[in-house]
Amino acid sequence: MKDLSDNLGAPDWLESIRWTADGLVPAIAQDATTGDILMMAWMNRESLRLTAEEGQAVYWSRSRGKLWRKGETSGHQQVVKDIRLDCDEDVILLKVEQKGGIACHTGRRSCFYRSLRDNQWVSVEPVIKDPDAIYGSN
Amino acid sequence: MKDLSDNLGAPDWLESIRWTADGLVPAIAQDATTGDILMMAWMNRESLRLTAEEGQAVYWSRSRGKLWRKGETSGHQQVVKDIRLDCDEDVILLKVEQKGGIACHTGRRSCFYRSLRDNQWVSVEPVIKDPDAIYGSN
Repeated sequence: MKDLSDNLGAPDWLESIRWTADGLVPAIAQDATTGDILMMAWMNRESLRLTAEEGQAVYWSRSRGKLWRKGETSGHQQVVKDIRLDCDEDVILLKVEQKGGIACHTGRRSCFYRSLRDNQWVSVEPVIKDPDAIYGSN
Repeated sequence: MKDLSDNLGAPDWLESIRWTADGLVPAIAQDATTGDILMMAWMNRESLRLTAEEGQAVYWSRSRGKLWRKGETSGHQQVVKDIRLDCDEDVILLKVEQKGGIACHTGRRSCFYRSLRDNQWVSVEPVIKDPDAIYGSN
């Protein structure tokens, strides 16, 4: 007979989320202090559970098909201050402290650095740090 | 022979977006003044084009399978101040003026009104206006 704890499955709060058919949910990361929207990525049950347990953002990389501990290479971790769920229970919002002040792999503060101006996408936010300096150039 | 204009298709700026297999892109609405994240919904090419042309948020309702002019029933339109695109070109951010100060169909300012506290989702934002008063009770 299996231990009862094996039957507990995922915590109730995880089960109230309406996951996609692929078992994912979009997660928006917002700077808890400035309100800047830093990025949007995806989470599966395990990554969201780990995010809550560890207090640092863990996403699911769809391209790599594995857990993605934000900042594992760059050092730009996101310390989680609050986890929010929307009215439809299908989007997560993380309020975070962004280590290094850089969320984007381009070396910018936010991934949303392009603005639509005169029917063109124009970069409107500066590169704070050269990506080669963040990730190392090979 | 078809008119050349028929071949122009969607504007270039729409084509640089990486749409899902269903032809959609997630769109986050943020209050342009306070930085509050109001909601996340989905857009197809037509809704995003209309949003840019009309200066008011138009989403695609996945449940109803049709264009959804935000505020068409509630009066809570979103006047668009800025349209942003992320580094992966697969998420849109709208900076908006939220008419009525209410984005959520529950009558709250933001759809992200539930916070994870002690492994439970807890409502942490007040209902500003009764939904029956917004949408009318039948």
